[in-house]
Amino acid sequence: MSLDTVLMRCDGALDDALDRLFTLLEIPSISTDPAYKADCDRAADYLVSDLASIGFEATKRPTPGHPMVVAHGGTDAGDDLPHLLFYGHYDVQPVDPLELWNSDPFAPALEETEAGRVIRARGASDDKGQLMTFVEAMRAWVEVHGALPCRITIFLEGEEESGSPSLVPFLRDNAEELKADIAMICDTGLHDGKVPAIVTQLRGLLAEEITLHAASRDLHSGFYGGLAQNPIHLLTRILADLRDESGAITLPGFYDDVPDISDDLRAQWQALNFDHTRMLDDVGLSVPAGELDRTPLERVWARPTCEVNGIWGGYIGDGFKTVLPAEASAKISFRLVGQQDPEKIHAAFVDFVNARLPADVSCDFGDGHGAPASVMSTENPAFDTARGALSEEWGVEAAFVGAGGSIPVAGHFKTILGMDAMLIGFAKEDDAIHSPNEKYDVKSFHKGIRSWARILAALSNQG
Amino acid sequence: MSLDTVLMRCDGALDDALDRLFTLLEIPSISTDPAYKADCDRAADYLVSDLASIGFEATKRPTPGHPMVVAHGGTDAGDDLPHLLFYGHYDVQPVDPLELWNSDPFAPALEETEAGRVIRARGASDDKGQLMTFVEAMRAWVEVHGALPCRITIFLEGEEESGSPSLVPFLRDNAEELKADIAMICDTGLHDGKVPAIVTQLRGLLAEEITLHAASRDLHSGFYGGLAQNPIHLLTRILADLRDESGAITLPGFYDDVPDISDDLRAQWQALNFDHTRMLDDVGLSVPAGELDRTPLERVWARPTCEVNGIWGGYIGDGFKTVLPAEASAKISFRLVGQQDPEKIHAAFVDFVNARLPADVSCDFGDGHGAPASVMSTENPAFDTARGALSEEWGVEAAFVGAGGSIPVAGHFKTILGMDAMLIGFAKEDDAIHSPNEKYDVKSFHKGIRSWARILAALSNQG
Repeated sequence: MSLDTVLMRCDGALDDALDRLFTLLEIPSISTDPAYKADCDRAADYLVSDLASIGFEATKRPTPGHPMVVAHGGTDAGDDLPHLLFYGHYDVQPVDPLELWNSDPFAPALEETEAGRVIRARGASDDKGQLMTFVEAMRAWVEVHGALPCRITIFLEGEEESGSPSLVPFLRDNAEELKADIAMICDTGLHDGKVPAIVTQLRGLLAEEITLHAASRDLHSGFYGGLAQNPIHLLTRILADLRDESGAITLPGFYDDVPDISDDLRAQWQALNFDHTRMLDDVGLSVPAGELDRTPLERVWARPTCEVNGIWGGYIGDGFKTVLPAEASAKISFRLVGQQDPEKIHAAFVDFVNARLPADVSCDFGDGHGAPASVMSTENPAFDTARGALSEEWGVEAAFVGAGGSIPVAGHFKTILGMDAMLIGFAKEDDAIHSPNEKYDVKSFHKGIRSWARILAALSNQG
Repeated sequence: MSLDTVLMRCDGALDDALDRLFTLLEIPSISTDPAYKADCDRAADYLVSDLASIGFEATKRPTPGHPMVVAHGGTDAGDDLPHLLFYGHYDVQPVDPLELWNSDPFAPALEETEAGRVIRARGASDDKGQLMTFVEAMRAWVEVHGALPCRITIFLEGEEESGSPSLVPFLRDNAEELKADIAMICDTGLHDGKVPAIVTQLRGLLAEEITLHAASRDLHSGFYGGLAQNPIHLLTRILADLRDESGAITLPGFYDDVPDISDDLRAQWQALNFDHTRMLDDVGLSVPAGELDRTPLERVWARPTCEVNGIWGGYIGDGFKTVLPAEASAKISFRLVGQQDPEKIHAAFVDFVNARLPADVSCDFGDGHGAPASVMSTENPAFDTARGALSEEWGVEAAFVGAGGSIPVAGHFKTILGMDAMLIGFAKEDDAIHSPNEKYDVKSFHKGIRSWARILAALSNQG
């Protein structure tokens, strides 16, 4: 009875919830670019104020980078009820190439599309729209019941899109305050665009940046071409060498700690009828790339990758400049699975590059920050409880799935706070996160809010 | 007697000549960047006015791109005297990376260095400083004698650094006006920084720009990594494939029209005692790259090359963005020798790239503009006459040399105007042309002016 009232409140307040989300989306909180530092701060302030308005004791917490938001509520709830920690991130990806956006990325708007109404803006899906689903669910609960159903801590980060440099120190320094019974992370998606899903295994990530240096200055390719090292050419050779013809990654030892998935899990995944053709077709592709001897779902959920995410060197303006540049650079990321150790892979990568440097060429390496893969302990009964609540809301059995993306915070909650994490989100593959024209379905937002209301009720036995 | 007076005039007017050069260097005539179109026009206007001031009938001639400057002088000289055409270019290379310049590239200044006084500015050496050597020699001659020693046409281009798109049509349309007995091109250097040289063979150039297209938008490497084509990775593979381990270029048929140099020429070149160690050491390198089975001088003067001059794709800003980009691009240039045909090499390059494109990836190609190599007919007695004049000025026997750079205009003068060209210049390898902190030695400028005065005298029998 009480849940029904909360769900009705979620429905009735949808327009207001969209207004609040739009206010947050208007703030260009691009964490990776120092030019937007004040905007990140402003986004944190807005969230502190919004959480305070529904009764949370909310604070902005400084870090050497962008601030964290920590909020506590329901602290007078019974000790027999669970203490939940909710995580999301208020920072967003850069918007380039800006010219491919059909509208201002920070002027959110509702759009009617063939597939229904969508919210169009950078961060609409990743992760502002998603984090506001649980905030709005709590608001509805508080408005109907006057209090939260159980003790809740909200923890919002502002550096997720820039490698989370402050996350581990902050978790360590505030472990007692942040520790709860279980974490709920809202930064993932529906399976196949329609099946609610709890992610139980996530790939890790190792990010590398390298710059090759050759001559002490840019050279004229007429005078020096054929005689001086060209760092671009060398960079292309090193990067090309990282994968063989079959798509396998050639770093020595790279696959040592990569487990094969169990027959059981393979059967579960096959039952999901993953439609890779549609996923590729959505973005103008038709043929799966990558490791030819693995199923498409396995490539994305259970296999490690190596991708060049950016490359630059020499003259890249209009026209032509026959230069042999002094340097050339690339950003490379590895998705990690199983027990692959980011530090070990980083060392192997450094050795791989150094072994290919001829005389006169040196390489600068970044610090190679990374996080290992995560596999959740689904024996915790909260997983089945949440699964049931999701199934009721969406009218279809919720799935335990893998995910190709990396959400290192899940691993850190486990190792630093000793807490399992449940990853539940409502994004769709066609949300264009990290790309121009990012969107979030209004349906995802609305049913996302309702889903959290149901999960809150189920976990606190108030359904 | 009369030559001595002209040479004294060259010495006495040096400071004024530097002032005039500085006025030209202050104009940022970067031809490849449309933002500097008005500046290119202004540079042409300045030269028209300067040439008119020493009696030339000078005009700015429009083209679809930047204007040409054409000036006629000595038109009443006897028909038994030679008609000379002088060529230079008033446009300059872009200045990026600007942060590596120690001063404003368009605020020319004299600097005392350990190796003597230098003129520091973009274009100081390539080619404004060089073209003003012949202009100043003519000014001195006119001031001393009241007239030029023979009929002279001056032809200055403003698109040399951006592929000379208007050159061939302009030469065709104005062939009668521009045809002379021999062309003098001032855009090359001293051999080994001290020996005056006439270039008798020049490499050609083919410039290519490619963009690989994969997905219809940038993708999140977590969702799509391992499943979608990464155009950067493919680009690195294609570019790496262009050269084998020995440095040889792998385009099918690439070496078909590359002649070996004659034993005679090889002996001449060996006598030059080319110091590749110093040339490399000047730019922080120590070991010659490129084709291991060729001498360094042969690699630079007589062998074709393939160099990546620019590459870009994905996220190249600060921080990290785990993106699989929709596209990746590169600028590639080939230096051509012997009978290599730019159109044939362009076609081979297109085939080479297309053969390496998997499903879902397409490639845009530029028009692949280029020019073949040039080999001069040194039997023309003007070559030996000029060589003698240069030897007198510099006190060392002038050399017939090759050059690694491409000066396509020499080939066009031959094929369109039926005229041999003599390439004489006073640049040095350490001039940093096309690079930050370009300079031109005051000695090059001063003795360059005197060299042209001597050549004018010798060719018109007025020594």
